[in-house]
Amino acid sequence: MRLHTAPDHRVVGSVATAIAEAGGIVTAIDVAESSNTRLVLDVTCSAGDADHAHQLEEAVDAVEGVEVYKVSDRTFLLHIGGKIEVASRVPLKNRDDLSMAYTPGVGRVSQALYENPDDVRRLTIKGNSVAVVTDGSAVLGLGNIGPGAALPVMEGKAALFKRFAGIDAWPICLDTQDTDEIVRTVELIAPGFGGINLEDIAAPRCFEIEQRLRERLDIPVFHDDQHGTAIVVLAALTNAMRVVHKQLAEARVVVAGAGAAGTAIVTLLLAAGVTDVVVCDRDGCLTADGEGLSPAQHELAKVTNPRGVTGSLHDALASDGGADVFIGVSAPGILQPEWIADMADRAVVFALANPDPEVDPGEAGRYAAVVASGRSDYPNQINNVLAFPGVFRGLLDARAHEITVDMLLRAAEAIALVVKDDELNPSFIVPNVFHPDVPTAVAAAVRGR
Amino acid sequence: MRLHTAPDHRVVGSVATAIAEAGGIVTAIDVAESSNTRLVLDVTCSAGDADHAHQLEEAVDAVEGVEVYKVSDRTFLLHIGGKIEVASRVPLKNRDDLSMAYTPGVGRVSQALYENPDDVRRLTIKGNSVAVVTDGSAVLGLGNIGPGAALPVMEGKAALFKRFAGIDAWPICLDTQDTDEIVRTVELIAPGFGGINLEDIAAPRCFEIEQRLRERLDIPVFHDDQHGTAIVVLAALTNAMRVVHKQLAEARVVVAGAGAAGTAIVTLLLAAGVTDVVVCDRDGCLTADGEGLSPAQHELAKVTNPRGVTGSLHDALASDGGADVFIGVSAPGILQPEWIADMADRAVVFALANPDPEVDPGEAGRYAAVVASGRSDYPNQINNVLAFPGVFRGLLDARAHEITVDMLLRAAEAIALVVKDDELNPSFIVPNVFHPDVPTAVAAAVRGR
Repeated sequence: MRLHTAPDHRVVGSVATAIAEAGGIVTAIDVAESSNTRLVLDVTCSAGDADHAHQLEEAVDAVEGVEVYKVSDRTFLLHIGGKIEVASRVPLKNRDDLSMAYTPGVGRVSQALYENPDDVRRLTIKGNSVAVVTDGSAVLGLGNIGPGAALPVMEGKAALFKRFAGIDAWPICLDTQDTDEIVRTVELIAPGFGGINLEDIAAPRCFEIEQRLRERLDIPVFHDDQHGTAIVVLAALTNAMRVVHKQLAEARVVVAGAGAAGTAIVTLLLAAGVTDVVVCDRDGCLTADGEGLSPAQHELAKVTNPRGVTGSLHDALASDGGADVFIGVSAPGILQPEWIADMADRAVVFALANPDPEVDPGEAGRYAAVVASGRSDYPNQINNVLAFPGVFRGLLDARAHEITVDMLLRAAEAIALVVKDDELNPSFIVPNVFHPDVPTAVAAAVRGR
Repeated sequence: MRLHTAPDHRVVGSVATAIAEAGGIVTAIDVAESSNTRLVLDVTCSAGDADHAHQLEEAVDAVEGVEVYKVSDRTFLLHIGGKIEVASRVPLKNRDDLSMAYTPGVGRVSQALYENPDDVRRLTIKGNSVAVVTDGSAVLGLGNIGPGAALPVMEGKAALFKRFAGIDAWPICLDTQDTDEIVRTVELIAPGFGGINLEDIAAPRCFEIEQRLRERLDIPVFHDDQHGTAIVVLAALTNAMRVVHKQLAEARVVVAGAGAAGTAIVTLLLAAGVTDVVVCDRDGCLTADGEGLSPAQHELAKVTNPRGVTGSLHDALASDGGADVFIGVSAPGILQPEWIADMADRAVVFALANPDPEVDPGEAGRYAAVVASGRSDYPNQINNVLAFPGVFRGLLDARAHEITVDMLLRAAEAIALVVKDDELNPSFIVPNVFHPDVPTAVAAAVRGR
């Protein structure tokens, strides 16, 4: 905060006290300007969240003789000018450099690629580039905010691609939410990219878009909200099963949420050998003969719920002696902590709704043996960063034309195995996102070594 | 070249001699491997062009006891892995960094942009990014080689954008040559970019694409092959007129070539006050009542040729006492050097066809007072690098929604003025491409300060 105050140095103490009393943590107070008539103070402090920051501002404003001139937010400051940039990998210092990187030298390279199109990946950025494509229709927990407002998220993703796997990703924010137009646009821009990462596209549109692009393109297409999430969930569940000494193939799993993530999770769990999955949406358990299901939900119902469980989420969790695993990718607060007591012994609860989970992880921990969530302030964060960088690193290294379910399974196994036996415990079922082995292990698994 | 030879050190001398006799220049000969049975030599040498390189290879291969194992080309080596990369502008070292650059912090930025779309340019890469868009239909002098083979050129352009103006440009190579699809695709990807640089798109399609995109987008659209070339030609011509002491407004100008570049050059010359322009294509002078003209050519004919000159290029150059200026953006060798003698005194000749000009610049110099070309091995190279970086720098800095003819005129003037009066001479009418003042002067001119 930049404050204007009377030229009275005691006011500094009052400001510090006001912030501390409102629960803020002062990092620094600098005098930016001092004169006979006023002081200009720059106060740097930490707040818990945006609401708390606003409370701190009000607390300071209430101090007598203090006027809050301007409030900056380090997150916004970080975003000014964007979070990524394009850099040249070649020197451009003199005419000789120019004549190789651009005309006339580049003409020989283009001519060679015209004659040997297979060399495009070797001699251009295509060999290491990924388009991060969104229509802005399902951005984080914010919903349909459109392509411009989605750009900071896509840029962040691009920055993570570089940080964790050395991949050159560029955000492509599309000014349409029409399935045909999205498919066609991605198809048309594909020549310059080695892979397509679909991001934050709403269900059920995302299924068709991915499906059609996979049919048409000779580069891999991966919807991170589906498959990235599914990989990390399977990795975490694999390790959770090790912790509670149960077999994945015999586990009863209830998945709340039949959207993009839920569908992908269920599909990958089945491929991993899970046999008993019940999917619940807001209307209760999906059954093959259920009414009013969308085509995607109907497909899901056909391959799940072998015991024909009906009723509410609570019913599904309690049925036939209780479920072993709850996986939520749905909405805040839909799981009451006490219901976990009706699950089987040593229950596993993954509450992944963002930013507010299906059940408070702390509350869930009173009943469940293992709890995971999407939150970074509790143990066992299910974070896609564990998957997508390594997945694309492996795909690009292999010059893969597609991504297979086997690759997803191997990626999940690789993440799970980064956690060593002697590290494994109920609060540590997934590796730290900065563990250096994760992307390389995932990449190797995807390549098939 | 990597050579396998008998383990006889005299062979090194023979190789060096063979290269020198074939006109090559040896930089280094390294022994990569030595054994009782053979030597492996790495020979680094310079050749004049690809054909000459092949001659050197044959000369070495003809040396007794020498086998050419592999030939590498430093231009190709430079292109391996691509010439650009994406870098993160923000630290991503710890959880705190992640929480600001990505979730949950980025969610607040996206929410703010949803509420205030005008801030997108300030808080994202859009404020500094340009899409370099091609359909691969008219790449350099190579023609219609397609989007994949065009990628090295677009990457080179992106590298130049960064080198000369700090702009983050990304290549978009489109897998279509359909006008409607190109327009729609660029429109749909526009939210993430602050400007569109169209590149190497064939005429007449390029006119309609640019026109329609300008109508639909709220960011500037610039076809460099047209307007970049026109700006540098006008800058060079302005200074050539200073050298020959003639007035631009009174000059008789003959333009050979009615494609993308020719049309843009004529349009800009007329806007700059030139009144007497005759355009010739392969069938001779364009006249308003000419037959068989395309719509674009007809438009051009209507605003040019005030004296109603008819006949061949030679006729146009010689008519009414002779033209003052020849500008060729057409095909190799169409201008015979002797025809320049039929032009007015102190004739100016710009032979810009690439890679082989309309007339050999050296030959033209025997008759003309000032000669310019697209070639870097003669004085007065007309190089678009003088224009496009500064033009887009100015547009982005001004957060411009469009580009105007006035901006193009000011950019040309700015380039011309970088050449000081005491530097100006027949061999120096345009600044060096590395002159540090060029992009900043052009940017300031485009911004209008």
